[in-house]
Amino acid sequence: MIDSPAARSLRVELGSRAYDILIGPGLIGRGASYDGALRGRRVLIITNETVAPHYREPVETALAQSGHEVDTLILADGEVHKTLASIDTIAEHMLSSGYGRDTTVVALGGGVIGDLAGFAAAIYQRGVDFVQVPTTLLAQVDSSVGGKTGVNHPLGKNMIGAFHQPKRVLADVDVLATLPQREFAAGMAEVIKYGLIRDAGFFDWLEAHMADINARDPELVAEVIRRSCANKAEVVVADEREAGERALLNLGHTFGHALEAELGYGAWLHGEAVAAGMCMAADTSKRLGWLNSAQVERIEAVIAAAGLPIAPPEQTSAARILELMRRDKKVTAGTLRLVLLTDIGRAIIHEDLGAALDDTLHHYLAA
Amino acid sequence: MIDSPAARSLRVELGSRAYDILIGPGLIGRGASYDGALRGRRVLIITNETVAPHYREPVETALAQSGHEVDTLILADGEVHKTLASIDTIAEHMLSSGYGRDTTVVALGGGVIGDLAGFAAAIYQRGVDFVQVPTTLLAQVDSSVGGKTGVNHPLGKNMIGAFHQPKRVLADVDVLATLPQREFAAGMAEVIKYGLIRDAGFFDWLEAHMADINARDPELVAEVIRRSCANKAEVVVADEREAGERALLNLGHTFGHALEAELGYGAWLHGEAVAAGMCMAADTSKRLGWLNSAQVERIEAVIAAAGLPIAPPEQTSAARILELMRRDKKVTAGTLRLVLLTDIGRAIIHEDLGAALDDTLHHYLAA
Repeated sequence: MIDSPAARSLRVELGSRAYDILIGPGLIGRGASYDGALRGRRVLIITNETVAPHYREPVETALAQSGHEVDTLILADGEVHKTLASIDTIAEHMLSSGYGRDTTVVALGGGVIGDLAGFAAAIYQRGVDFVQVPTTLLAQVDSSVGGKTGVNHPLGKNMIGAFHQPKRVLADVDVLATLPQREFAAGMAEVIKYGLIRDAGFFDWLEAHMADINARDPELVAEVIRRSCANKAEVVVADEREAGERALLNLGHTFGHALEAELGYGAWLHGEAVAAGMCMAADTSKRLGWLNSAQVERIEAVIAAAGLPIAPPEQTSAARILELMRRDKKVTAGTLRLVLLTDIGRAIIHEDLGAALDDTLHHYLAA
Repeated sequence: MIDSPAARSLRVELGSRAYDILIGPGLIGRGASYDGALRGRRVLIITNETVAPHYREPVETALAQSGHEVDTLILADGEVHKTLASIDTIAEHMLSSGYGRDTTVVALGGGVIGDLAGFAAAIYQRGVDFVQVPTTLLAQVDSSVGGKTGVNHPLGKNMIGAFHQPKRVLADVDVLATLPQREFAAGMAEVIKYGLIRDAGFFDWLEAHMADINARDPELVAEVIRRSCANKAEVVVADEREAGERALLNLGHTFGHALEAELGYGAWLHGEAVAAGMCMAADTSKRLGWLNSAQVERIEAVIAAAGLPIAPPEQTSAARILELMRRDKKVTAGTLRLVLLTDIGRAIIHEDLGAALDDTLHHYLAA
């Protein structure tokens, strides 16, 4: 049985960098949500042109009412803007407005805004505080927990960045109302991932409730967020700098990043590429004798039920995907290592892939 | 009495980020100097066009002989290149060469190279290891200890950066042989600073030995480096993220940064601006009744004996310097705070400056 969803606040225990994740409706417009998370009087909200019309005003009002001096910087929307140039734009704005070290940056948006605003906060005057207000399911369950921030480089995704923990995360379920179905599904890819790598009970629960989750039943969605964040927080606390268990969070991501790069960033959403990548990882795991066909079918069924792809586009080149996978930053000393499954709820990192990886690539892709 | 200078290795005790500073002759060309400080097989030396002709070859050879795959990136020389654009150049080189997370970056050069290469290491794939091989006295006694890395922005110095501790620092006294006298003197400004803020015995020792230090007696220079690094390391260990005592290291720097900005970066060396700034801080301290005239004269005499300026250019505008000081990143919530002296060897942070700061500015500068 799953815990009661009534009280939804999670503490991420990272010593001097510990912080709370608040989960529930109506959080962003309530001043109390920010209490204790803002260091100085000045707050800079960083958001984008898509999110601003919906949520800028309630956040500004809540912060102003609690006596803060609030200013909002609106960036262009899209992964294509997750660049060092945007960091320079943010720094320019902050310096010309005289922001000091006691500034708090509020990242109001999806994963791109969280990564950009978080990285800007990490390196502005060698680090100022920031608060995450994620407005997509993906950002709520994944990128707002763990402290990874950064930007893309033309030669690879997330290649420039920092570990910088937020002072608080506000996962407001009401903001998901404006989220397109395709983006909701993309967030579900990471949710399913937590079940697959470390929480078989959660996987069973998702299997049982997917239809109501897709209908965005608020109680179920809040529980999806809580249990996902709890899983991620446990992993991050055990391994803040990604030396060990944290790497298991990359299930499906080495395949997924290669697919995103090959299809062109933005053609597939990150969650869609990860969904197909998790199916490919399950296939490789089956070829190594670790999963049976019934388990792979359950995995594919849950992913399909969430409205996600269970395979990459067939015309993609296997050789090209392998080459891109070898360029992934998880590659150490030239050895390709993959996160694979030994059971539903149990993942390992494996590098002795034999022919299994090639067989998987040729099963799904063109020569 | 000062400790014996025979065994010169200092450990900076920062828990999981602890590292050693080795001080002595012939370090950079000896493979053993790098033992235990290099994580993977691949090493990237980042240096500049001035340093490379002198010291690239011995470092490359030492690293190659210990079985490492070595590559060198040579940047243009000068503070003007300490920009986010140079970080992008480094990232481009590293990504196109396929450097992974187990890379070690070796920063071979002065403070600019240390700041740039250190910051690139801090944010490349969210952080790789780096080793500092400082080739100026200033970098050996100051910027290679403490983990501050970063770049300038057109709107301010060191405004973008990270705290990233090196895995080792090699302070090779032989490399100072090619250092121009003016740059040696600039390094001595930071050396004198340690005496002023926390080590009166060191100040006395410098007063007694300045002529032989200026003649670069190798034993005395090694002792200058050791005692400076020991002082800085003690401060950094007590206050890694610059919340408290570490701010005392900024004696003379708020004045100095304003002078550098007003005169144009590069017109005066950083150490020269800090030297004049320390005299100005001593003057303000005297006006507050904390130092007497004899103490201020001793301070000026040591600074002058090191070949450093004891005042800014007279034609500089007091109002402009005050405006620039207010823009310094140490300013919290609009309040200007200065590091001042209550004795030789004892510094405090003070913000209730009354008329003393204005009087100092008008004493040294034009209206």
